[in-house]
Amino acid sequence: MKEILQYIDQNIGGYIEELKEFLRIPSISTLSENQKDINRAAEFVASKLKSAGMNHVEVIKTEGHPLVYAEWLGAPGKPTVLIYGHYDVQPVDPIELWNTPPFEPTIIGDKIFARGATDDKGQMYMHVKSVEAFFKSTGSLPLNVKFLIEGEEEIGSSSLSSFLKQNADRLKCDAVLISDTSLFAKGVPTLTYGLRGLAYMELEVVGPNRDLHSGTFGGAVANPINILASMISKMIDKNGKILIPGFYQDVLKLSAEERKNFKLLKFSEKTYAKELGVKELSGEKGYSTLERTWVRPTLDCNGIIGGFTEKGAKTVLPSKATAKISMRLVPYQDPEKIARLFTKFVKKIAPKSVKINVTSLHGGSPFVAPITHPITKAAARAMEKSFGKKCVFMREGGSIPIVVEFEKILKATPVLMGLGLNSENLHSPNEHFDLNHFQLGIKSSAYFLSELAE
Amino acid sequence: MKEILQYIDQNIGGYIEELKEFLRIPSISTLSENQKDINRAAEFVASKLKSAGMNHVEVIKTEGHPLVYAEWLGAPGKPTVLIYGHYDVQPVDPIELWNTPPFEPTIIGDKIFARGATDDKGQMYMHVKSVEAFFKSTGSLPLNVKFLIEGEEEIGSSSLSSFLKQNADRLKCDAVLISDTSLFAKGVPTLTYGLRGLAYMELEVVGPNRDLHSGTFGGAVANPINILASMISKMIDKNGKILIPGFYQDVLKLSAEERKNFKLLKFSEKTYAKELGVKELSGEKGYSTLERTWVRPTLDCNGIIGGFTEKGAKTVLPSKATAKISMRLVPYQDPEKIARLFTKFVKKIAPKSVKINVTSLHGGSPFVAPITHPITKAAARAMEKSFGKKCVFMREGGSIPIVVEFEKILKATPVLMGLGLNSENLHSPNEHFDLNHFQLGIKSSAYFLSELAE
Repeated sequence: MKEILQYIDQNIGGYIEELKEFLRIPSISTLSENQKDINRAAEFVASKLKSAGMNHVEVIKTEGHPLVYAEWLGAPGKPTVLIYGHYDVQPVDPIELWNTPPFEPTIIGDKIFARGATDDKGQMYMHVKSVEAFFKSTGSLPLNVKFLIEGEEEIGSSSLSSFLKQNADRLKCDAVLISDTSLFAKGVPTLTYGLRGLAYMELEVVGPNRDLHSGTFGGAVANPINILASMISKMIDKNGKILIPGFYQDVLKLSAEERKNFKLLKFSEKTYAKELGVKELSGEKGYSTLERTWVRPTLDCNGIIGGFTEKGAKTVLPSKATAKISMRLVPYQDPEKIARLFTKFVKKIAPKSVKINVTSLHGGSPFVAPITHPITKAAARAMEKSFGKKCVFMREGGSIPIVVEFEKILKATPVLMGLGLNSENLHSPNEHFDLNHFQLGIKSSAYFLSELAE
Repeated sequence: MKEILQYIDQNIGGYIEELKEFLRIPSISTLSENQKDINRAAEFVASKLKSAGMNHVEVIKTEGHPLVYAEWLGAPGKPTVLIYGHYDVQPVDPIELWNTPPFEPTIIGDKIFARGATDDKGQMYMHVKSVEAFFKSTGSLPLNVKFLIEGEEEIGSSSLSSFLKQNADRLKCDAVLISDTSLFAKGVPTLTYGLRGLAYMELEVVGPNRDLHSGTFGGAVANPINILASMISKMIDKNGKILIPGFYQDVLKLSAEERKNFKLLKFSEKTYAKELGVKELSGEKGYSTLERTWVRPTLDCNGIIGGFTEKGAKTVLPSKATAKISMRLVPYQDPEKIARLFTKFVKKIAPKSVKINVTSLHGGSPFVAPITHPITKAAARAMEKSFGKKCVFMREGGSIPIVVEFEKILKATPVLMGLGLNSENLHSPNEHFDLNHFQLGIKSSAYFLSELAE
């Protein structure tokens, strides 16, 4: 490993120049005017994988944006790792809040500022460079490596999802290595071993067949906004417990060990509340903030609208009101079952004076890996060697639906080796990536390939 | 009276032509591009009052749209009636839903279709013509008459309000005659003797200092939409009682006589519900629909907004949510007191995890007249003679704040002799006015002048 690490240190300047070149491509997946840039970004990734030493590299056309696939299978008998990442980025609006141009990467101190810096170009590129370091220093890799890099992560990964199902054999592997999450804190080696799932619903309450004058009709008919508010208020009790019957049935209980581990993490509720600008944090009674966001399911209104919403006063009794309500799920809750329970519940509590329409907009399964799995342990050792510190294990409140698909379809163990930070403005203006983490990430990746090979 | 009635019948064709001319003027008070039309409409009214026989007619400039004032005080010792109405109209959007051009009055059957037909040009013009009929038939009026016609009724009557306060002496009168409300039903002579007041509030719930990712942060902080929904649900109990402490303190109890009178009105809850497209009506327990909309105060959300409200799913935990909440008030509730009680209540029920902002957007006092007052009785006799049927007394759920000002400032009795129908699409496309009611209204007005003179 020594020569590989040396190679990385000697070449880091060039790596950063290459990353800048990559970040200059405005590969915004949601905007059709960036189609050419999307293709350019895919070609960029393919060419860098080729020059790194991967002996089979393909740009695969899909119904959406192209996938980049590469493989090197020169270590028969050794494990296979599939490295996943994405080359597409979020839009840049509001552009006026950027301090530097989003597609002109700018280094300030030890941070590189650009759209995609941390999500996910910078993190994904670490693995391209760790593989290159192996090939250039030793002529080969210690195990079999496949790369699968997509261009639709920010818009739902639908092409990848079909590709996975149709190419399960070809993609066969033992571990899926993903760097698209965050460190627990700056400089703290971290593995994320759990993600929440999602059931995202829309609830529409329909009252009278038209907007009515609230003077003439106020008191005569049920008001859809008032009814919707009342229904929402019946979903959670004052202790933060969700009241949908059966909701907690499949919830994996927080273990004493996990609770102990979380308590060891340096986390200040006070600092966290201050940073969010709230007087006090709030949620399910009996759980700490980390527990509430990582291992407990939640229910949140993501949006609500009805009646007159402009400036001033209009005396309307609206015909309808709509809320978007999503539930974050934890193992082993099933998003489809939860959507059914939600639908049944709202139908039950809706008064006869209104009609309701319930739609399931989106679902994703939760994920948790046992932290004692040999692959997870190898990843932890890799990060510890790279950082020179003990690795911490965290879970994440958000969802990455593709992780669960990798696990289910490929029967492989996902390794979420994120090198970003939640404070790096992903999806916001002034996105950036810590270049120390970039370098540590390349080394962590190299150590992981080496640890897993043994 | 006989020759006056004959004169009306003989000239009704000409009156309708004049009304068409009036309706062709697009005097939309809220749009600055219609300023010239506003002035033209005021001049039209003034010229018609002059040719009707009023001997002092003025177009009075204000900070907003002009007032038209006229008087004839040739009956010393006799009572004085002030006739109020408005020449301004609502905008016409959505224009594509009109079956005929809004400013090209079109007669279909016995209805005239145009913006302003029923609200209020058609109704106001009845009185111009009844006065003309007196002058042309008898050379004078049986009592003193003042006209005060404004051009800002649809935008808040603020110029009229100042004018009233500054000219209380000049406007002195015994009765204020207003035709800007509805008949209980087609062909049923009706006097409206009560209006509800209004306290219109805005409630904003502010949580974290920015929109958060509902995955990463869901469970950590209070969600402003959920909190707002919960607060709204605490405002009304399951029996439709409003839970703001002190809210009912000043409410005038429904008398047994009034309840009996309402029961005599031909009103079908079933037809009403069907017309509104609801399975069942809903509201405060223990009261009929007419009672709930006429004599009981109510609380309605007029609008709500927060978070992501476009199509699809966005996993946002929003920074804030806002609701517009108005309460319809009944005698002797005071809008300012109610606004204070509301504010105190929401501050009390708001959890510490959020900040709230409460604003009072608008207020208006409720109104009720004793139906035994001699002026009200004269009005009832007038309508009965014109229609040949017994007059019914109703209240109205909406508010006309200027009515209370007339009562308070001029110490005069308001007479709400509305000839419109709630089904005549006021403020909506295809507004119309029943020409039979137009003719009956001119006669009711003439009878009233004659009855009041005795």
